[in-house]
Amino acid sequence: MNPDRRDRLRDAAIEVLAQAGGRGLTHRAVDTEAAVPLGTAKNYFPTRDALLRAVAGRCLERYRDQASAMAGPGPAGRAGLAALLAALLRDVAGPGRPRVLAYLELQTEATRRPWLAELLDTIAAADFAAHAALLAAAGLPSDPARTRALTLALHGALPHLLTGAPHTLEAAGLDDLDRFTRDLLDTICPPEHL
Amino acid sequence: MNPDRRDRLRDAAIEVLAQAGGRGLTHRAVDTEAAVPLGTAKNYFPTRDALLRAVAGRCLERYRDQASAMAGPGPAGRAGLAALLAALLRDVAGPGRPRVLAYLELQTEATRRPWLAELLDTIAAADFAAHAALLAAAGLPSDPARTRALTLALHGALPHLLTGAPHTLEAAGLDDLDRFTRDLLDTICPPEHL
Repeated sequence: MNPDRRDRLRDAAIEVLAQAGGRGLTHRAVDTEAAVPLGTAKNYFPTRDALLRAVAGRCLERYRDQASAMAGPGPAGRAGLAALLAALLRDVAGPGRPRVLAYLELQTEATRRPWLAELLDTIAAADFAAHAALLAAAGLPSDPARTRALTLALHGALPHLLTGAPHTLEAAGLDDLDRFTRDLLDTICPPEHL
Repeated sequence: MNPDRRDRLRDAAIEVLAQAGGRGLTHRAVDTEAAVPLGTAKNYFPTRDALLRAVAGRCLERYRDQASAMAGPGPAGRAGLAALLAALLRDVAGPGRPRVLAYLELQTEATRRPWLAELLDTIAAADFAAHAALLAAAGLPSDPARTRALTLALHGALPHLLTGAPHTLEAAGLDDLDRFTRDLLDTICPPEHL
């Protein structure tokens, strides 16, 4: 097994899941997307569950890459954190779209597959800890209730951003991402509390 | 066309979508679930898009039924609203599970189908207005920033509740729904603000 080819197939599986949904995720579609000979995906990931597991593993890796890129000195205060969160949401509607779409597909598949639910459990639970660390690094209160409200509101924003339906984006305030993250932080961690 | 049979088929389509995902939503599966002769679903909803539209329409009706059941005198203050929201979340993990699962499946399908995105746009946008009305009825501040944070946090809780992965439920505070909604309201509308 060639590790480069394996990653190429896993990235192709993310693209297929994002573009065609769970219904379109077949070995043949992954071969076509990866531009490899027919039968290659089946060779690396023999079953449909193995394909789903490959997508989940790749999503987890990409999530970790993103999380470690976000670590380091931490955002500069409230404004810095708001800008960082706005950049993350902008990525969801832009270059990160296939990864996040694939993740939402995996999430619905996980309601029917305990082994997949267990894999995604790691990613989702880690996201709460990551947001607590970001709040703390920005000098904002990071108690569980605030961390939960922030993390869940960001999770709730994802499908709306991906669908891009205009009335929902407006009602959610997601039509202006800089204002959105600033207001969200001001609501959850009011300035007068500092 | 018999309206009762039509509703029975639409409810069956919700069940099929919830249990088997977008991949399992076929006319044959809906006929079997509804216990009607093979070919009936195809007769009422000739294409797969027509089936999806039927599910979306039924979800919208059920959403409206629930919204009008929640209208009326309104929740009694902060504690009343917390109890009402906890009951709604309890329904998601219980009797409402097929409807909410079907809705999440529709949401991912909507990223690929503009006509479906438009249909769901109505439901999702109305949900922000419904939460603003609930906050106001409970005597809590209902400005857009607070309404958005509350609505998105509740939307973000849905997939976690449906998957039921233990570390995520604990990290999100969703392992105790009464405490969760109380903390969420206290975070978004701090008591000292009143």
